[in-house]
Formats: sequence, structure tokens, C-alpha cells
Amino acid sequence: MYEYSHGGNAVFETGKKNMIDLSANINPFGMPDNIADAIIGEIPNIIFYPDSFSSKLRESIGLFRNIDPDWIICGNGASDIIFRIPRAVQAKKVLLCAPTFSDYERAARSFGSEVVLHGLSPANDFTLDRTCVSTVQREKPDLVFICNPNNPTGKLTDIGLIKELLEYCKQINAVVVIDECFMDFVNRADEYTSIRFLFNYPNLIILKAFTKMMGLPGIRLGYAICANKDLIDRLYFHGPDWSVSNLAQAAGLAAVAVEAAFIRQTVSYVSSQRAMVENGISQLGYKIFSSEANYVFFQSPYPFDLREALDEKGIRIRACGNYHGLDASYYRIAVSTEENNIKLLSALQEI
Amino acid sequence: MYEYSHGGNAVFETGKKNMIDLSANINPFGMPDNIADAIIGEIPNIIFYPDSFSSKLRESIGLFRNIDPDWIICGNGASDIIFRIPRAVQAKKVLLCAPTFSDYERAARSFGSEVVLHGLSPANDFTLDRTCVSTVQREKPDLVFICNPNNPTGKLTDIGLIKELLEYCKQINAVVVIDECFMDFVNRADEYTSIRFLFNYPNLIILKAFTKMMGLPGIRLGYAICANKDLIDRLYFHGPDWSVSNLAQAAGLAAVAVEAAFIRQTVSYVSSQRAMVENGISQLGYKIFSSEANYVFFQSPYPFDLREALDEKGIRIRACGNYHGLDASYYRIAVSTEENNIKLLSALQEI
Repeated sequence: MYEYSHGGNAVFETGKKNMIDLSANINPFGMPDNIADAIIGEIPNIIFYPDSFSSKLRESIGLFRNIDPDWIICGNGASDIIFRIPRAVQAKKVLLCAPTFSDYERAARSFGSEVVLHGLSPANDFTLDRTCVSTVQREKPDLVFICNPNNPTGKLTDIGLIKELLEYCKQINAVVVIDECFMDFVNRADEYTSIRFLFNYPNLIILKAFTKMMGLPGIRLGYAICANKDLIDRLYFHGPDWSVSNLAQAAGLAAVAVEAAFIRQTVSYVSSQRAMVENGISQLGYKIFSSEANYVFFQSPYPFDLREALDEKGIRIRACGNYHGLDASYYRIAVSTEENNIKLLSALQEI
Repeated sequence: MYEYSHGGNAVFETGKKNMIDLSANINPFGMPDNIADAIIGEIPNIIFYPDSFSSKLRESIGLFRNIDPDWIICGNGASDIIFRIPRAVQAKKVLLCAPTFSDYERAARSFGSEVVLHGLSPANDFTLDRTCVSTVQREKPDLVFICNPNNPTGKLTDIGLIKELLEYCKQINAVVVIDECFMDFVNRADEYTSIRFLFNYPNLIILKAFTKMMGLPGIRLGYAICANKDLIDRLYFHGPDWSVSNLAQAAGLAAVAVEAAFIRQTVSYVSSQRAMVENGISQLGYKIFSSEANYVFFQSPYPFDLREALDEKGIRIRACGNYHGLDASYYRIAVSTEENNIKLLSALQEI
């Protein structure tokens, strides 16, 4: 029944220590320099239970994002919160836009929700468009997940369309989750984030994580933002009380302290590197669906298994055959350091 | 709807940094000396996702406990696993023995199970006895939780009774969870652990944690043992994939390496200290229900709020009024260092 279905596992799966892992979308700069000291300083406190409410961390995130700390709930990675959401909503029917991150469906099925897929079309570059409003009107789900920018496509959703969806969903008492775990990699993210809608839409939950932008997948730290206190309470109820370790809270505090500068530096680097990688891949005959996030997404016209071919050259990419709506010809590759990106393009040329 | 209902929160709740926190049952020796270095050594790896299957840690636990590593699933504290169990079992009806640890009920209600309570009687020292077999036969639950030794009473369950319950539950396809998070504190734990039943009872799940014995509540690490691979798979399915951080896996490996000696040293110290604390408390007129774990449990004949009175003396204990089957006259106090235990007894005398 259970099978691991994500990237980010290259070293375990291949047994090769030197594998360049471009199957997970982690900041090429890794984590900020101040994280290690924060963790080391917190070690003596692991003989105490963590603060169940991550109070200091929420205060600090609230200041940084300019939102009420009580609108925030921290979790053991965003995926911890994703699993709580269908339960908190008691969602009978969940709408997903396919292809997208697979945990939404896992969480929905774990709760026992019916899952309805709204297919994103390659003809439309996999962009979410107004047809999804009709799908929502027809299906009347209790819960809608939108990943923005979407994983694995890197596509942004129009902010007017999000508002329209929120408005309709508010009328039918449906909760809309906008997963913005990759939003901070986007140029002019301010224009695309749904944070502005929180106040007027208590049916909106925004997801954020420290995993990708802050380079901390191994610490497990993410959070949700929602202006509906009752919904926040239900998110606390539907999971364990001490889900965020002391070390994760300390690392998160350190990360927030340097986050603004780290994001600026990363966005500028990633967008130039992404342009280079997309160009290089495109010139080799692959069909690029241009991405706004820290990964590139494309379709191969060639009959061979590109992941296997790159594995042999010591580079692991994400084959996308296990996403709904995609097949084995689609791949996702993280934008990495210039050095790794050049290695990737050379390896692709050799293949 | 949601309210924090456990101990271990003294500093946050009172705002006093120097509070002696005896409301959580953590090893008085704290954590082993080798944990800090293990965590520090792992910090560079937090730029990678953790191994979803905690493979090295399971290998090492398997060797230590003499069980197949594939029978083990690690979680973000035992409470992570507790929340997955009702979902993995798809439990319509859950039987709990009250009073007991409150997360079993939270997890059952989060899944939507009906919760049935089998009351433990003060007249019988809150010991689980054969009347629970009748309750199981009458109620026919899908899932039974037994905490052994029980929290907050410290009482052990007879191993013959556990076998009888396992046998009957196997016939009616019910899963039995034996939470042994405090078992390692028990003298001659080998005689009381249900590990011997794993092979013959695929309906048995045993819970263990690093929280209490290894003094690591802040790291979040626990595990379940079960010989039913399909049930293990379902436990993986019903929660996030990366629930155990890299740092927790590293800390766990270090803990297992020294666990045998640490347990020996702790058991000997805790049992002599527990005797002293129980004696002292008993002499002051409180009714002790003698405990086999690293905490003492008693009822006060006095009309005042003992927790408040001790708070004023800088010591936080666990008031047990929010457990099913108990009222505000019951208290639980962790067995701490000799120094703290003496402070506790003096404070009680003054009161």
C-alpha cells in the first residue's frame, strides 16, 4: 500500500554518496550561516518538552510577514499541517489540480475524503485557468488545494482567479489552501502571494515552509496562516501536541532573523541560473514549460529514460511519471549552484 | 475546542525560569552525554531531506531490542504514531482504560472513532484486572489502548491478562496497543514487557519513546513495533513522509548506543528515589498508589490545591483533575534528582 513517492532521496536510493541531488528543490545556497549556532545553543534544552505553540517563533514570523501570530500554526514540516487540514475541515470532497504535490491527495485519502481532480492541460502550459471555477461550481468540494507556484510545473496562478475562487468557496463554505512553499523564490512574489486575502477570507489557509527557501529539509519546519481562529484550533487538535521540536523552533527563529536578505540573494541568483538551465535544456530539444520557481519542468521527446541516464552520470533528477496527468516523458530538475547546473547541462549534452 | 492538557509546560505557564518541573516524567539524569555531539555532527546534513524510513536508526533499535527492524516504525515522538493508529486500523470503536494518557482519546476522536472507557477503580488501586476482558467481550472494539505501566498511576498490568486480551482481540480482529513508554523504568522490565507476544500476535503494537528514559522530550522521537507488515505500511501511509528529522535520527542512534547502561543506572537510582518520595508523601497523610514507573501518584485528603501551593514554592507538579475517572484530589509527581526530591518533600512538609 505504502510507497515513497517523492524526490530528495538520491543518496539512499542509489547508495552513491557523491550523487548530485537535483530531485529535491532546495535553495542552492543551502541554509543560512546562523542556523548551526542556534541549534547548538538549544541542545541543553532538549531535556524539556518543546513549547506546543511555538510562541516565540510565531511572534517572529508574524513580525516578518506582518500578520497576527495567532493566525499562525507551526508544524513538523508543511506536510504535518497538510495531513491535519482534511480532518480539521472534515472534508467530504477534496478538489486537487493535477499534476501537483502528492501529499494533498495522501492527506485527503488518509482522512477518507473523496478526491476530485481538476486536470491542468499541457496545451495551456499546465497553468490553472478559469475552467477550475466551473469545476468548483460543479463539484462543490469542501476543500480545495492550490499549489502556487505549482509543484512540479513552477507555474503561478493569476491573483484575480484566486480571489474569484476564494469568493465562491466562501459562499459554499469550502476552505481553500494555497500552498506557497515555493512563493519566496518568485520574482515580485508580493504581486502573487495570497497573504492580502487572509483578512477577508477566513476560508483561506496559506502554507509556508522553511524546507526549500531556507535550505532546512532535514529540520522539519513549516507553518500555516489562517485568520479563522476556530480553524487554527482544529488544526492544533488534529495532530500531536509537540510536533515542532525545540531544535526546529530554534532553527526557525534564526532563519527568520536573516530571511529577508537570504530571500533577496536567492531570488536573484536562482532566476539567472534558471534562465541558463531552461535555455540549455530547451536547446537540446526538450520542451520547457517555463517555471517561476527554483526548478525547471520539461517534457522529453526522446524514448530513453532520462533519469536513469543522468543517474549514471552522478546526477539525480525527478521523473514525473507518478504525478496524475503526467507520464514518464516529464521531468523536474532543481535549479542548483552554477557549478552543478553546468555539470547538468554537460551531462545532458553527452546524453 | 483545543486546549493543552499535559504537564511539562511549567516554565511557559508560570513564566518562572527557575521552576522545578516535576509535571513531566523525564529521566532525572537528563540525556546521555553523547547526544550533543551526535546532533552537532548531523547539522551539515539538514540541507538534505531525512530518510523517511529512519533505516539506520531502526537497524540499531532492532539490534538492541532483538527484533526485526522492519517491525519498527519511527515517529515524531510516540504521539505521532498514536495519531496514526486509529486511521491505520480504521477503528470504529476504541477502548481506553481510564485514567490514562489523554492522547489515545484525542487520536481516536480525531479519526472519528467512538470512544469507550473501561474505568480503573481506586478500590483496586487503579490496577487493570480481568473485568476489562468482559468489557472487551461486551463492547467488541476494533482498537484497545493499554498503557503499561500506566500513566498517571504507574501501575503494571499482569502479563497473563495481556496475553488473554491479545488472544481474544485476535479472534475479533481488534488491534491492541501496549504503550511501554515508561516500561524501561520498571525493575525487571523483562518480566512485564509484551515484546515476547509480537511474533504470535500480529494484532499487537508496542509503543516506545526516547522522550522519558533517554531524557529527550525536546527532540521528538518515538517508535512502534508490530510484526504485521501491512499494519506498519498503513502507519507509514497515514502521516507525513519525513516525520523524523535528521537531528532526531542522529540523536536516537547515539541514544541507542548507550541505552543499556543508561537504563541500568537510571532504574537503580529511580527506584530508590521513588521509595523515598513515596514514603515521605505517605507520611504526610496523602494516599499513595505505589508506582512502578518514574513518577508517584497519590490522592490528597486536604481541601487546598496542592499544585498551586507548590507552584508558590517553585515546584510544578501535575494536577490530575483532567483525567477521566480522577478528580482534583489526585496528583502525579515525577521522581527527580535526590536534590529536587528533598526540596519537594520539604516544600510538602511546609505546606
